[in-house]
Amino acid sequence: MTTTFKAAELALPGITSLQPYQAGKPIEELERELGIKNIVKLASNENPLGVSPAVQVALTTAVKGLARYPDANGFYLKDALATKFSVDASQITLGNGSNDVLELLARTFVQPEHEVIFSQHAFVVYPLVTKAIGATPVQVPAKDYGHDLDAMAAAVTSKTRMIFIANPNNPTGTFLTKQQLQAFLDKIPTHVLVVLDEAYYEYVPEHERAPSMQWLDRYPNLVVSRTFSKAYGLAGLRAGFAVSHPDVADLMNRIRQPFNMNQLALTAALAALLDEKFLADSIAVNSRGMRQLIDFCDAQGLNYIPSHGNFLTIEVGPQAGKYYQQLLEAGVIVRPVAGYELPNHLRVSIGLADENDAFCAAMERILSS
Amino acid sequence: MTTTFKAAELALPGITSLQPYQAGKPIEELERELGIKNIVKLASNENPLGVSPAVQVALTTAVKGLARYPDANGFYLKDALATKFSVDASQITLGNGSNDVLELLARTFVQPEHEVIFSQHAFVVYPLVTKAIGATPVQVPAKDYGHDLDAMAAAVTSKTRMIFIANPNNPTGTFLTKQQLQAFLDKIPTHVLVVLDEAYYEYVPEHERAPSMQWLDRYPNLVVSRTFSKAYGLAGLRAGFAVSHPDVADLMNRIRQPFNMNQLALTAALAALLDEKFLADSIAVNSRGMRQLIDFCDAQGLNYIPSHGNFLTIEVGPQAGKYYQQLLEAGVIVRPVAGYELPNHLRVSIGLADENDAFCAAMERILSS
Repeated sequence: MTTTFKAAELALPGITSLQPYQAGKPIEELERELGIKNIVKLASNENPLGVSPAVQVALTTAVKGLARYPDANGFYLKDALATKFSVDASQITLGNGSNDVLELLARTFVQPEHEVIFSQHAFVVYPLVTKAIGATPVQVPAKDYGHDLDAMAAAVTSKTRMIFIANPNNPTGTFLTKQQLQAFLDKIPTHVLVVLDEAYYEYVPEHERAPSMQWLDRYPNLVVSRTFSKAYGLAGLRAGFAVSHPDVADLMNRIRQPFNMNQLALTAALAALLDEKFLADSIAVNSRGMRQLIDFCDAQGLNYIPSHGNFLTIEVGPQAGKYYQQLLEAGVIVRPVAGYELPNHLRVSIGLADENDAFCAAMERILSS
Repeated sequence: MTTTFKAAELALPGITSLQPYQAGKPIEELERELGIKNIVKLASNENPLGVSPAVQVALTTAVKGLARYPDANGFYLKDALATKFSVDASQITLGNGSNDVLELLARTFVQPEHEVIFSQHAFVVYPLVTKAIGATPVQVPAKDYGHDLDAMAAAVTSKTRMIFIANPNNPTGTFLTKQQLQAFLDKIPTHVLVVLDEAYYEYVPEHERAPSMQWLDRYPNLVVSRTFSKAYGLAGLRAGFAVSHPDVADLMNRIRQPFNMNQLALTAALAALLDEKFLADSIAVNSRGMRQLIDFCDAQGLNYIPSHGNFLTIEVGPQAGKYYQQLLEAGVIVRPVAGYELPNHLRVSIGLADENDAFCAAMERILSS
């Protein structure tokens, strides 16, 4: 190839320093590498119940129609979401997973001269979407592994355009109460968009959940993001959405790829939204599994970060990287979180009872060896 | 809502002037509006044969696994593409449709101070992705409805960073020979990326196709874009890809959403790639249907733009908008192309024989009334 061609010199400044998101290894790839079978994957906060039977039926029916383009406006899904959350369809922006929604928000509103605030130990996509447009990420130190909202409010400057808050937070599981959130929203000027990422919302007990959709009338600069990847069991299909002031949604939809959610994702999300029993079962399985992991930690004398999500982040000490490898070799995949400035922790997704048992047994063997 | 909140003032300059892509109406939406059934849709250049049976089988099997995240690296699909096109997997960037690939290219390499060149009557996504990052679109007048490559080369300035060429072009179907393309590539400096969008490549007779993948070794600034939405019959699933210099692919993959292609799109694209019989059938159906439409035009004395795609753009005169409506009422959806500066034309996608007949019969009635 021509030696004078330097692709990096043509790219957006800083893009070469961007590390792409490190996804969990697919089970089949790991089985190939390690030469073992029946691996238990507790690494990506996926729904251990799988896909709702109602969704499977809907998808199997939809498969024949796939030579047609998707409905670019997501008419039926938006209609169902608007009804469920008592908002107007014009407030909704559909995304190819909530990752897409977070990126659309940054691309619509953040320019290179702006600052974007998020917390230490928060979801890695926030700095990624910020750096991908050449803006300045402002990471605020965490308090007790969670968001320090006072410090985040104090970090707002005239250059701040967006604040990302994950509630519950991934990968720590920490949770902000509705009172804390509302006090924070009252302090933030309306030229700063507050993106409340509620990917794990459904796992929060009902009485603790923030009335975030209702807040939209009061805080026009609030954007609520949700996903179908967790409690709804559709991680493989990429379905997420934002609910916001209609003017915010209108602007996001102008740069949204018209077919960003594919037809099977639209079909599955609609079927999943209507299958309330599967959602309830998923939440119940998660509660029981969380109890299992907590009991294990207590019995082993392991500290953990109290979690409102579908995972538990456990303090295993400076050997975390070694334990991760040993767990792998024992056929259990968990998530190391050193990249989140948590080098002494491992994040364990809640699985089915026997999957959780497999983790506990392997971890116990490793700790006692 | 608070009256002091002005979302547009917070958005990227120019974004409010962006018109979102106008997708064809879903058939079910139109049937609802018009109160009619059995509509023939020849509006979106979709594959009239539907989805390959092999793909349907693969999807039905994959449905159960959808609670897991997709393979972020698209290992199996990239491997199959690399083998088929004799390139390295490191040269491939997977996209949520080729729309995603085109947007990633612009976002990776084009900055607000740059110019992006494309032809009059070219695919609307080129100016959209350019404006969405605040760069300057440079539209070069067409010659005989197609790309005027001499004029496009002459439009290159020190600010030019990217040139989009669709071959065959949508919505005109015009085609550039390999000799024309290569002479053009020889003229373009390597600081300008040339994006050759070959969405309709498979419909071009084999002996006429440009050896674009082989050219990559010679032109490091060339990027070839392909899609599974047309001849492969997967428009509803969003699967496209770029093949480029590995450094270009590496940069694009740094800002690519890790799960941009969902698991069913990965699964279906792989199955479709291996189903050569379905591809051959699709091309044969297209050739026969093209003959049908051309014969109709000739019989009616209608001019058309000779097309290498899966559609024919027919000159029906200044009443095109009225004819579009009358065709709709007759249950046939075609695509008006006034937005492409072709106010006297209608674009008709090639359907099955009886669908083409339905268009011809309706059009004949309208013209003779």
